[in-house]
Parts: sequence; structure tokens; C-alpha cells
Amino acid sequence: MANEQRRIETLLGTMVPREAPAGLGESMRYAVLDGGKRIRPLLVMAAAEAAGGRHPEGADRAAVAVELIHAYSLVHDDMPCMDNDLLRRGKPTVHVKFGEAQAMLAGDAMQALAFEVLTPEPSAQLPCALQARLVALLARASGHAGMAGGQAIDLASVGRPLDEAALRDMHRRKTGELLCASVLMGAASGGETAVVEPHFHAFGQALGVAFQVVDDILDVTQASEVLGKTAGKDQDANKPTYVSMLGLEAARQYAAQLHAQALQALATCGPEADKLRWLADKVLHRQH
Amino acid sequence: MANEQRRIETLLGTMVPREAPAGLGESMRYAVLDGGKRIRPLLVMAAAEAAGGRHPEGADRAAVAVELIHAYSLVHDDMPCMDNDLLRRGKPTVHVKFGEAQAMLAGDAMQALAFEVLTPEPSAQLPCALQARLVALLARASGHAGMAGGQAIDLASVGRPLDEAALRDMHRRKTGELLCASVLMGAASGGETAVVEPHFHAFGQALGVAFQVVDDILDVTQASEVLGKTAGKDQDANKPTYVSMLGLEAARQYAAQLHAQALQALATCGPEADKLRWLADKVLHRQH
Repeated sequence: MANEQRRIETLLGTMVPREAPAGLGESMRYAVLDGGKRIRPLLVMAAAEAAGGRHPEGADRAAVAVELIHAYSLVHDDMPCMDNDLLRRGKPTVHVKFGEAQAMLAGDAMQALAFEVLTPEPSAQLPCALQARLVALLARASGHAGMAGGQAIDLASVGRPLDEAALRDMHRRKTGELLCASVLMGAASGGETAVVEPHFHAFGQALGVAFQVVDDILDVTQASEVLGKTAGKDQDANKPTYVSMLGLEAARQYAAQLHAQALQALATCGPEADKLRWLADKVLHRQH
Repeated sequence: MANEQRRIETLLGTMVPREAPAGLGESMRYAVLDGGKRIRPLLVMAAAEAAGGRHPEGADRAAVAVELIHAYSLVHDDMPCMDNDLLRRGKPTVHVKFGEAQAMLAGDAMQALAFEVLTPEPSAQLPCALQARLVALLARASGHAGMAGGQAIDLASVGRPLDEAALRDMHRRKTGELLCASVLMGAASGGETAVVEPHFHAFGQALGVAFQVVDDILDVTQASEVLGKTAGKDQDANKPTYVSMLGLEAARQYAAQLHAQALQALATCGPEADKLRWLADKVLHRQH
């Protein structure tokens, strides 16, 4: 898996331009080549393998594209008008390092680059049908009904009571949809059949929620140094979280239950899905 | 042409969601359904007709997508960390009306929506090859090498001397690439052949530069009320423009020369390209 992570770093380093006008390449590379955990690209790769590994170039490009979307969302989310975060993965955030205007443009350009990466000249390795499918999955997961919509709910919910259904809806959109799309983009690149698609979907959905529940748990149990970002921020901002809603112990139980659901969704898959199973374990048991 | 504009408004009204979480739909619709000139969608439609009109659904979706990209760029460009504009097309800008965080998210979601609009379920009306081609054209024109790159150069050039080559490069990226992409997306939707593609490309490039030259001229010759935005801003910010570089008269001559170039590029096309020719006239002779 460390090999896979190194390969993802290399892909990102190749596909995110060094030469872009007026320092834009530098700020984009700073934002994305920062040694993140690369959960989403790893999910793409593992799902592609689980689904048959038919179009490796599709999986590579999907992995880069989904990480670009994730990284751009962090850049914009960290800005003063949003979370006003100064620290991200142990480094100054992009707007602290390059200024707000450059951070906004870098995020915008990273989103465009994600879709550019998915649409090279069509070839046997990456046919048009797969390109269109990958774009469709990524655009829907990151847009108004997905990630951006979840962030809008998050923004509107500070200091306001949110019931469990609303909290789950917010997180499904804000983080769940993109994690789920990572699995589905991988499965599409692998050559999934209509029969197995629902299994990948169920796995991705359970994992997406589990990821957020664990995130909320870590926010209150870990120090900033371990997280590489400011801990306890959600609590301080009086933002609703799974922990504030359910309590710490029940949140832990809920995460374990989602983990079991995710594994159950892969029950009919063979050993080719072992990497996906292993990633589900990693998401549940991560320390940061 | 007024019919075409009404049809574009209807398409935008249908494809930009009314229902999106936490007011996001409202702010997206405010940003895009504002009676802009719709030059880019009109170019898409006219180029599609000029190239054979083969895939009208492709042209419709390309028109909506390119306007979404243009509108999102205005939302982000107007924000305090960029141009800090309070007025746009005679209305309060999106961040003034909805707050900065919501404006950033609305812009982000509009960019994602553009790519979502281009990738519906594949059909005979909109085959995968056309979907992938439209995404590729739009992503490249709006990203680091295109629009976002031009904005980064613009940002870095305030109060600094920029020679004519650098100014032209900035504007080619900042506005020219998206206008050119509008023509190319239309031509692709119309069913262009490899023989005519260079003509559309040359037309789009000349028109893209002409548009910016006229913009710079209007910025110093028209009142804010006519423009529907704050006039003289570039001059006040000591930003280099074609007018500050060449002088007003030479800028006017340059616009006329580009207009002639654009028409020359269509010399081998028949009357099916008349709408494109008419649009080139409109761009040159517009008053706002």
C-alpha cells in the first residue's frame, strides 16, 4: 500500500503543472503535493482492482482527479470567509502562504484540472464512454447536491440545532459523496458490471459515513500535532458533530457498525476486493 | 437572436437547480439568471449552426455549461480578495447579497454543475465522444492555462508594467480562451469536420481578443449606469489595459482589425455562418 501511495504522489506530481502563469502552478502544487493520506485515490485504485482492473489509465486519472477535488475543497474551506484555518497537515494553509486571491484561483484551477485530467485524447486505454462516466460521477459528487451542498448546510448550521437526520444528510453530501464517488470511479475504471455496481455503491456509502464519524471522534480525542490541523475546532465553533449528537461511546459504536456494513456489501466479492476491505479497516482505525 | 436569448434563459432556468441545500440553489440562480448578454451561449449556438447543427442537445448543454463557467468566474472575481466589486449588471454582487462564504460555494458549485450538465446519460443525441470532447474543451479553457491562469497574471500585474506581448497573453487566457472554447464547443456539437476546425479556431481567437479590446475601450468611455458595473475600475487600479497601452484611437483600430480577421477566418463558410458573422459585429459595436 506504501507503493501505491508513492505511485499516487508521482502521478499527482506529473499531472499538476509546474509551469502555470504567475505562480499558479506553485500554489496548486503546494496545495496538493503535501503528503495527505490519499484515502480517495487509494479507494479508486482498490475499487478498480476489485472490479477487474480493465482500464488502469482510467483508474490513475480518476485517482488524480478525485484528489484534486478534495484538495481544492480544503483550500477554499480553509479561507477566512469559511473556516479561517491557518494550519493544514502541519503546514500554513494556502491563503496564509500565497494570499487569499491566489488561494481562491488555485482552488478554481484545481477543480478545472480534475476534469481536464479525466478527458485526454480518447484512446483504447481510456475510451470516451469511460471518460464521460468518470466526469459525470465526479461532477455530481462535488457539486450542489454533493460536497458543495454539504458545505452550504455546514455553514448554515453553526450554532443551530441539527437533528440526527439532518446531520447525516450534511455529512453524506459533504464528505460521503466524494468518498463514494472514489469507489464508483474506481469500479467504473475496473470494468464493473451492472450486477456488482450496487455492491460498490453500498460499500462506498457506508465507508463515507464511517469516515466522517471517525473524523468527529478524532477531533475531540487527538491533539493538533497528531492531526496536523487545529483540533477541537468543531467543538469550539459549536458545530454539530456525531460526537456532540450521540456522545463519544455511541459514536464509536456507530463507526464500528458502519464498518461491518461496508464489509457486508463486499461479501460476494473474492480476494480481488481485499485491498478495499483493508482500506475500510484503515479508515476505521486511523489515528489522524 | 432575441428568440435565441430567450431560449438560453429558459435552458439556464431549467438546468440550474432551484432546490439545492441551504440556499445554494438561490445564490447560484441569482448569479447566473441575471440577464447577462449571453455572448458565449450565443456563440455556441451560432457555431453549432455554422458547423452543421448535428447535435442540438450538445449545443444546448454546451451553451449552459460555458455560461455557468463565465458566471462563476464573475462571482469569484467580484469578491473582496479579488476585485471587491459591489455592483454587477446593475445588481449587488453575490457576496454582497449572500455573504462571502456562500458566494465562494456558489461559484464552486456552478463550476461543478457545468461539467455535470455536459455529461448526462449518454444517448444518440449526445454520444460519449461529444461529451468527452466538450468537457475537454471547457476544462482546458477555464483552468490554469486558460481563464484561471489569466486571472493570476492579472492579479500579479496590478501597478506593474506589462509589455504588449504579456498583456495580450493575459487577455488571451483570461477572456479569449473561454470565448474561443464557446465557438469550438459549438462547432463540435454541430458536427464540424477536421477541415473546418482551424477556421472556427481562428475566428474564436480573433473574436476573443477583440472582445477584450472593446471591454477596455468601454471601461474608459462609458458610464457605470450603461455598463451595469463600476466603470473606470481598471484605470483606477492602475491595471494595464489595451487603452492604457496603445491609446484609445489605436485600441479602436486594433479592434477593427481583429474584427476583419475574424470575418476572414469564415471566408470559406456559406450563409450557415451568418449568425457567427453577425455576432462578431455585435461584439465590436456593443455599447456595454
